[in-house]
Amino acid sequence: MASLLRLPSLLSPSKPLLRRRLPAARLAAPAASRGQASAAAGAAAPAAAETRGGDREGQVTPRSVDFNAWYTDVIAAAELADYGPVRGTMVIRPYGYAIWEAIQDYLNVKFKETGHSNMYFPQFIPYSFIEKEASHVEGFSPELALVTIGGGKELEEKLVVRPTSETIVNHMFTKWIQSYRDLPLMINQWANVTRWEMRTKPFIRTLEFLWQEGHTAHATLEEAEKEAMQMIDVYTKFAYEQAAIPVIPGRKSRVETFAGANQTYTIEAMMGDKKALQAGTSHNLGQNFSRAFGTQFMDENGQIEHVWQTSWAISTRFVGGIIMTHGDDAGLMLPPRIAPIQVIIVPIWKKGDEKAAVLEAVDSVQKILKEAGIRVKVDDSELRTPGWKFNHYEMKGIPVRIEIGPRDVTNKSVVVSRRDVPGKQGKEFGVSMDPSILVNHIKGRLEDIQASLLQKAITFRDSNIVDVSSYGQLKEAIAEGKWARGPWSASDADELKVKEETSATIRCYPFEQPEGTKKCFMTGNPAEEVAIFAKSY
Amino acid sequence: MASLLRLPSLLSPSKPLLRRRLPAARLAAPAASRGQASAAAGAAAPAAAETRGGDREGQVTPRSVDFNAWYTDVIAAAELADYGPVRGTMVIRPYGYAIWEAIQDYLNVKFKETGHSNMYFPQFIPYSFIEKEASHVEGFSPELALVTIGGGKELEEKLVVRPTSETIVNHMFTKWIQSYRDLPLMINQWANVTRWEMRTKPFIRTLEFLWQEGHTAHATLEEAEKEAMQMIDVYTKFAYEQAAIPVIPGRKSRVETFAGANQTYTIEAMMGDKKALQAGTSHNLGQNFSRAFGTQFMDENGQIEHVWQTSWAISTRFVGGIIMTHGDDAGLMLPPRIAPIQVIIVPIWKKGDEKAAVLEAVDSVQKILKEAGIRVKVDDSELRTPGWKFNHYEMKGIPVRIEIGPRDVTNKSVVVSRRDVPGKQGKEFGVSMDPSILVNHIKGRLEDIQASLLQKAITFRDSNIVDVSSYGQLKEAIAEGKWARGPWSASDADELKVKEETSATIRCYPFEQPEGTKKCFMTGNPAEEVAIFAKSY
Repeated sequence: MASLLRLPSLLSPSKPLLRRRLPAARLAAPAASRGQASAAAGAAAPAAAETRGGDREGQVTPRSVDFNAWYTDVIAAAELADYGPVRGTMVIRPYGYAIWEAIQDYLNVKFKETGHSNMYFPQFIPYSFIEKEASHVEGFSPELALVTIGGGKELEEKLVVRPTSETIVNHMFTKWIQSYRDLPLMINQWANVTRWEMRTKPFIRTLEFLWQEGHTAHATLEEAEKEAMQMIDVYTKFAYEQAAIPVIPGRKSRVETFAGANQTYTIEAMMGDKKALQAGTSHNLGQNFSRAFGTQFMDENGQIEHVWQTSWAISTRFVGGIIMTHGDDAGLMLPPRIAPIQVIIVPIWKKGDEKAAVLEAVDSVQKILKEAGIRVKVDDSELRTPGWKFNHYEMKGIPVRIEIGPRDVTNKSVVVSRRDVPGKQGKEFGVSMDPSILVNHIKGRLEDIQASLLQKAITFRDSNIVDVSSYGQLKEAIAEGKWARGPWSASDADELKVKEETSATIRCYPFEQPEGTKKCFMTGNPAEEVAIFAKSY
Repeated sequence: MASLLRLPSLLSPSKPLLRRRLPAARLAAPAASRGQASAAAGAAAPAAAETRGGDREGQVTPRSVDFNAWYTDVIAAAELADYGPVRGTMVIRPYGYAIWEAIQDYLNVKFKETGHSNMYFPQFIPYSFIEKEASHVEGFSPELALVTIGGGKELEEKLVVRPTSETIVNHMFTKWIQSYRDLPLMINQWANVTRWEMRTKPFIRTLEFLWQEGHTAHATLEEAEKEAMQMIDVYTKFAYEQAAIPVIPGRKSRVETFAGANQTYTIEAMMGDKKALQAGTSHNLGQNFSRAFGTQFMDENGQIEHVWQTSWAISTRFVGGIIMTHGDDAGLMLPPRIAPIQVIIVPIWKKGDEKAAVLEAVDSVQKILKEAGIRVKVDDSELRTPGWKFNHYEMKGIPVRIEIGPRDVTNKSVVVSRRDVPGKQGKEFGVSMDPSILVNHIKGRLEDIQASLLQKAITFRDSNIVDVSSYGQLKEAIAEGKWARGPWSASDADELKVKEETSATIRCYPFEQPEGTKKCFMTGNPAEEVAIFAKSY
């Protein structure tokens, strides 16, 4: 990490109760860009610099006391992100960005395996483009950032800073597609997008965020539908297998469908406060954009048709989902498969003559693990005590800690602690330094942790979804902060009424549906499907 | 590739003269965003779609006839990029983006090896930030794109769409840095940047482009200087060893130094038309930004000091540099190390009963090469003739082509052609399909091509640099389109006079300097160094 919080070394790791009182940096409330800018102008006086360091002391608000405060505290203390100078913007710090890189590395391979190529579209879109697809402009125009001055001159046409790229993609697709032989056209871009959100929250909803957006064009509706489903499946697998987040995949209601799509598929995740997070979406766009932009092709019979399209995206919001799914009062907790650092090694010595032997053992253990493909880091800094380091790397959510002291060196063994099991229960003494034993042991522990985080999240999710058969039961479940699942075939107006009265929305019609005939809990009419209602981010 | 140009199969590969007459798509002249937008609004009529396909026929303008036309023709025909709807913007198509990914993959590893972490800063910068560093605002304010409307409202303070990030980086560094223990702080971001350029050219100068920008803060001037030099060295090695571009590293003159830097180091590349391309820069920023933003730290003695900084960048412009260094009249020519596809396999059969055996051999050869880590692609499409494919993949600059026909199958051998050696001379018949022999042969050829492209570029560069000892000689060299190298210790005013009279600027004081005392060719005064003058992109 580029910069470490300078937290005073407070506590010995032998006092488990006190260990939770970890000092941490609170995210400063973001100032308006104007105010902040002038505050930064004055050079910090010596005393101020000192005081600022001191101000950073504090502790992470317990999750149970205030989930939102806990969330922003963890983001600050684990050095994941900071507020940018412009309201609603976020600086993604190296450790937070490394989590995003882990997400990218996995998905990028999957996208290529499924036949997509990366490319890049300009972020400035002529304002007139946005207006071409009727529901698209309705959905996005309140959130646009507009460039009106370029090179010192007022522009003839305002430029939209992309909130999403369907319009410019279609403009280009229209140039590139003529024949069925040009299809399917399947591309993806990793990019920044801008939406002028009023209520922002780091990672979850920011004025600018990073994402990937896939865009495809097909010769038939069936192919487009298959593609949209394939990509929501890629996201689902990623969530379960990499991020240990047991999302529920399903279809959005008409009301919640993407502005410009025929169908939106989604993965919905339950956060630690039981609120839902829409963690990824895949849209079957039908011919909405191809009709608006004249994106046509000649089929095998010489007929001219509009292409059928999809788009799909996952963003830096997912990092927020990881924090809010697995974190606890000691801070972040990362699933091993996406942890930038899987193992932290902390050397421990008291007398100077112990140091050399300990560091030699540490070095050897690091090499053994690195060669086995494990992402390992050593913190041998003498500016911090082992106790400080234990707290610090727990806050950073590193799955496994290895301690090596003089006695371990003598015994040719190490101490292994799991981040996900607090206290002595998560600690194993006397794990052999023998390379093959050690590597097997650590790999096994990483797998255990990965599986255990997923299982814990599944249990939490399932114990907080209530099956309802009346509107009263739904209200009760939502009032308890839970998700309500029940048969639904009522109107859009009824759906909006539920939202007004309970703040809950339809998160999705899950793909996995119960058998048998159902009765809509709102109207009593027959219902084909159950829907899941919840409050959401 | 997502979409292939539908070029008619014109010519058999047995007519080498005619083979150069490759049909290609010209890049359409970019329309103003307004006009283009309305043109796209109407759905393309069937006839129009057909005609458009036909319009794409043509050929790449020979390099010797019109270098600029050749350049844009190659970009279109090799499907590297297209114009975006907004003037000066560019869409990077999959094949062009894959070259950028190859650049990223290499540099990203080098940046991490040298201790840098990736992160991400917001792209919107309060206008007041830009004004804080005097020479910075002077350099950048004419090129800014400004967001003035957000979420439907006029903003209180205009936001700059980042042209570069020194100001916002320093704003954040000021929050994160307090003590010498926080230093060095060494980060990098991969991002898009916007500069309102009036004269644009795909890859070389676009309104928006992609780059990486490194930013570091150090405790001493010496450390910052060492870092700035280290990074220009990373760029130099990349250019030579990966891109086969023999850049000349050196120091910029005061006039050409980055707006806000004390020193700018550069790598200068000679393009095929002998114009210079600034292909990467590394700046020693001194304390210019840390003073403007109050970025201070307490040193080991308790003294408060301003940090010393660097920044350094390489952009998608480098892709343009690759095209203009190695390309020829048949199109792009890619150095094997950064070629997205290193080997293209073209199966050849005439009679239906030959097909199965040929495709089986093709499949086996592909597997053998893939397992050896070679990036290989098969084109077994039956929509195109082998001759069309030969032209097409030459246009795409793929280093090695393997042909496999029925006779080759019988002989258990293949035909191998080098992209960089035209005609029969570059063709080897009867190369054994035996896995170890074939892999060794292909790896050897790829190395040969890599080395040969570099050597050819060095020879071209060195034969086009003229050592001058008078202003008259400089004028003569520049008039011939060459680079002029000569002792220089004259004034900034003299430098500007040279520019006015010859259009040439000081590209750099090269790090590699001749021994001995020198006399300034302009003033006759003693000169410490030689400078290189050239016309540039």
